[in-house]
Amino acid sequence: MHEFYIIARYFAPLAAGFAGADGLRDDAAVLAAPEGMQIIATTDTLNEGVHFIGNEQPGEIAKKLLRVNLSDLAAKGAKPWCYLLNLGLPATCTEAWIAAFAKGLAEDQAHYGVALAGGDTTNTQTHISLSLTAFGLIPQGNITRRSGAKPGDLIYVTGTIGDGYLGLKAAQGELAEDVVYFSEKYRLPDPPVGIAPELVALASAAMDISDGLAQDLGHICAASGCGAVVQAEDVPLSDAGRRWLAQHPEGLAALLSGGDDYQLLLTLPPEHQALAEALAESWCVRLTCIGVMVPASRVEFRARDGALLEMPILGWQHHFI
Amino acid sequence: MHEFYIIARYFAPLAAGFAGADGLRDDAAVLAAPEGMQIIATTDTLNEGVHFIGNEQPGEIAKKLLRVNLSDLAAKGAKPWCYLLNLGLPATCTEAWIAAFAKGLAEDQAHYGVALAGGDTTNTQTHISLSLTAFGLIPQGNITRRSGAKPGDLIYVTGTIGDGYLGLKAAQGELAEDVVYFSEKYRLPDPPVGIAPELVALASAAMDISDGLAQDLGHICAASGCGAVVQAEDVPLSDAGRRWLAQHPEGLAALLSGGDDYQLLLTLPPEHQALAEALAESWCVRLTCIGVMVPASRVEFRARDGALLEMPILGWQHHFI
Repeated sequence: MHEFYIIARYFAPLAAGFAGADGLRDDAAVLAAPEGMQIIATTDTLNEGVHFIGNEQPGEIAKKLLRVNLSDLAAKGAKPWCYLLNLGLPATCTEAWIAAFAKGLAEDQAHYGVALAGGDTTNTQTHISLSLTAFGLIPQGNITRRSGAKPGDLIYVTGTIGDGYLGLKAAQGELAEDVVYFSEKYRLPDPPVGIAPELVALASAAMDISDGLAQDLGHICAASGCGAVVQAEDVPLSDAGRRWLAQHPEGLAALLSGGDDYQLLLTLPPEHQALAEALAESWCVRLTCIGVMVPASRVEFRARDGALLEMPILGWQHHFI
Repeated sequence: MHEFYIIARYFAPLAAGFAGADGLRDDAAVLAAPEGMQIIATTDTLNEGVHFIGNEQPGEIAKKLLRVNLSDLAAKGAKPWCYLLNLGLPATCTEAWIAAFAKGLAEDQAHYGVALAGGDTTNTQTHISLSLTAFGLIPQGNITRRSGAKPGDLIYVTGTIGDGYLGLKAAQGELAEDVVYFSEKYRLPDPPVGIAPELVALASAAMDISDGLAQDLGHICAASGCGAVVQAEDVPLSDAGRRWLAQHPEGLAALLSGGDDYQLLLTLPPEHQALAEALAESWCVRLTCIGVMVPASRVEFRARDGALLEMPILGWQHHFI
């Protein structure tokens, strides 16, 4: 297979909807933000044998690659716009794999309203290495960072927490029940992309939950110079998550600190609470208040009786090298 | 080593000069283009064992990674602005390697006036995989593509041609003379970044020469729907290149079609010729007219006597998988 053949056949169609891509006939894309908007850029890499096993459906790998990036855009309240793709494939990779990978991208492009703007296609020695750089748009001068939370702000999460952790266990063959449900949650994250621009605009601080709720809340606290008290039993779990927890009551801390949820973690000034909850209802997005920001610079997860929950697992630690 | 430690120690300092990076404390960067400017984005991947051997100086790998991207920006006449870095490293990689890699980036950041805006740091199973996405700025509504060349336009190249090809030979131990010169040319490309915005603005079409002059000129011809006649002996060679050619007179076609030159290939309307040459002189950039665009849709390299030069090697073919 020739790089230009692969690009023309499988990737140029993905760029048809984005004028700045010039049909992928050039090595550069024009990112001309619409009047009054500014560009948010984020990039994430998935490597075979580290972030995925390699025997997953190529279309699902493609979707996960796109979605973990869209999750970062959602955390900034950015509307997805376009993306660049770095596709590093070993010689053992077949054209059928590439076709299925591109098909997965096409499906998610239609779902999320994004288009391919450019990229690079390379060979690797042995393993698949995929990077995607996603661009979103937000109104100029209007960015919600991790650092804006204040004591008294309410802590909210979208969706449910812990399914990503149990999904990894399912993928590793360590679960006996709800295996299909959890596996799919792990393979195909579903970040709340649609509601994000309006919801995050109401927040004082926001990020996506990719390293575990406990650790990510710690990031907001560190950046904002304050602390958090979370009512552990208020943290929303899926029905399947509740079933697992009933059988593993010692596992709550693991659910609260496991990775790969790809939901939004927000701090909301109390005066925005009602508006945010109404917005979530109109989008049919689950939005749950789990605690409050406090002056002290620590993150506490408390049981219903006020007892401090020990958090032995501090989330996905990014042990590196 | 912990990812956050690596980022804080080695990469946050590289982002100090770019406000939109927010000190790398977030997973997303704000790319707010200055008034009247639009953003050009390009991305290139270098994989260990494919694009580099792995025993090169880490700082030189870093510089090559940045420069091959800056070369693509130069081809669009874009002024370098900032970049995202995807650093995929196997567990065998040491902190000293990372420190040297970051030092190389810091040196080139100072040289080219760019800053780190964000990225992702990951583990790979076995080999280093590096992607870099570079952003440049051009005035709004003012983009030179590959497709604007017209019959009668003059074909120019910056710098010298063929050193990249001989550099690869040197790196592979196949050269006996000028080994240091050619190796350095291959390891550290030197795209004409400074002159590019003004020079490319004068051109009807432009691209960088990364896949070999012959093939890249073919891309401009295909995109523009016309052809080219090049006077092969007008193509500028370095002194070392001339010495090699004197000993390998059959090697001219290889020099004209080998990859990795990272110079600019431009087509200039005749009325811009004098201005472009004066500009090059003021920048001390070698700018050489090598031929003319013609109506027929083919690329011809001709010897001084008018004979058609056979081009057996059609450049870096990107054989893929």
